[in-house]
Amino acid sequence: MRLFIAAARESGLTIGLVPTMGALHEGHGALMRCAREETDYVVATIFVNPTQFDRPEDFQKYPRNIETDLAFCDRLGVDAVLAPSAKEMYPGEVLTSVEVAGISSRLEGEFRPGHFRGVATVVAKLFNIVTADRAYFGEKDAQQLAVIQKMVADLNLPVTIVTVPTVREADGLAMSSRNQRLTPEDRRNAPALYQALCEAERLIRNGSRSAPEVRQGALTLLLRNPVIRIEYLEVVDSATFQPVEMVTGDVRIAAAVWLGDVRLIDNVFVRGA
Amino acid sequence: MRLFIAAARESGLTIGLVPTMGALHEGHGALMRCAREETDYVVATIFVNPTQFDRPEDFQKYPRNIETDLAFCDRLGVDAVLAPSAKEMYPGEVLTSVEVAGISSRLEGEFRPGHFRGVATVVAKLFNIVTADRAYFGEKDAQQLAVIQKMVADLNLPVTIVTVPTVREADGLAMSSRNQRLTPEDRRNAPALYQALCEAERLIRNGSRSAPEVRQGALTLLLRNPVIRIEYLEVVDSATFQPVEMVTGDVRIAAAVWLGDVRLIDNVFVRGA
Repeated sequence: MRLFIAAARESGLTIGLVPTMGALHEGHGALMRCAREETDYVVATIFVNPTQFDRPEDFQKYPRNIETDLAFCDRLGVDAVLAPSAKEMYPGEVLTSVEVAGISSRLEGEFRPGHFRGVATVVAKLFNIVTADRAYFGEKDAQQLAVIQKMVADLNLPVTIVTVPTVREADGLAMSSRNQRLTPEDRRNAPALYQALCEAERLIRNGSRSAPEVRQGALTLLLRNPVIRIEYLEVVDSATFQPVEMVTGDVRIAAAVWLGDVRLIDNVFVRGA
Repeated sequence: MRLFIAAARESGLTIGLVPTMGALHEGHGALMRCAREETDYVVATIFVNPTQFDRPEDFQKYPRNIETDLAFCDRLGVDAVLAPSAKEMYPGEVLTSVEVAGISSRLEGEFRPGHFRGVATVVAKLFNIVTADRAYFGEKDAQQLAVIQKMVADLNLPVTIVTVPTVREADGLAMSSRNQRLTPEDRRNAPALYQALCEAERLIRNGSRSAPEVRQGALTLLLRNPVIRIEYLEVVDSATFQPVEMVTGDVRIAAAVWLGDVRLIDNVFVRGA
């Protein structure tokens, strides 16, 4: 990879990086299109990072299909794909970790202990391997994005983070590699997650400033669907990812739910009054 | 700094980095000479990093003399000096830290809680700002060096770490910015530290394989000098920096002592049998 990058730099090309865990879908496609448009040499990485999975069965069941993924990258004009093994990424004993405090404490950080340490560390590694000018991340993982942006700022990493809006199915479900593991019935129920978030957004736009009220409105809608188990649904400050009591500034409404043994997350951003 | 580096790279120059906390002496001089010899464009950084000081009074009393330091850099042919303020290095709230487990747990890590987290984090920042090809560190801070080498390997940082042997005064005292804070009497007693380490080395070379015996030999010599207060003196594995019972492989004998309110460290490497 470093030889490819050195050759590209030699030719004066700018480098774009799209880090993925594979099982590529149109959400990744949007990241790649954005990178393709803004940079000269696009690198995608495909690595299902073991250190960011808090549940071993989630890691094992995570969809993998490298042949389909490579064809996908090819179709989208990706110049190089880095798809290392876990042994290649973590040779010998791993002793170093990157931690971003604060932003990572709630929501995904609370329900997936160690998740963001794994994410920050592997993303730092990928940044250091590819040394891209710009790296592309989807808004669906908004908290991850905030963690990475803070890491880049705090560690002076020489890369610009580009945020790409969540891509959704026609019925509103956020694209995710995990969607393919939903049963047909769960797939039919899954859009209720986004609908609940939209309800919360609607309540704020209609003037509600009470976070518990907004939260309750969204939860009421979600609870109508008995197959959906709610892990969290919170109104958080869009910068700190800490729950708020009053909606005064920019917020995100973020939720994680379970459908069968599949965990889905989604979020919407609402600009403050 | 990034503009300087971009211009140097544009001209095809290789970059060498010498990170320092200022109060420059011939130990730093050796790092700079080495960098000057091996790379085309030498950057020195001067930053007394607050986050690696566990004792506020040590941070406050750390010697600072930027004018003398700049003249020193100039004399040694350094091309650029980065001497940021704490505000420039840590604008806003710092949430990100880099931790290297294991290697950092004993010796300096044990007696200076948080020290190596501060070191690893600021060195990662300096690496990301300067993006040097090679970075130069002194063997006097052997544990720090091991922490940084492990961080570079684990995070795939695109830099080669170069180790430079400890530079000593004629009487054996390792050069250190803290030496200038010694009273004349303490300065006369200070070489006992290195003499004790040499005694430990001699015992191993003479066939002793028992770490407690080697340690006791060095301590006995050091305890003869009542003004020296011993913080630690340990025989550690040279890779893991964990104390050993038997000297079977490569070891370091490392010690920290106090003379008045000045803390000195030193170490010697002994190749295993």
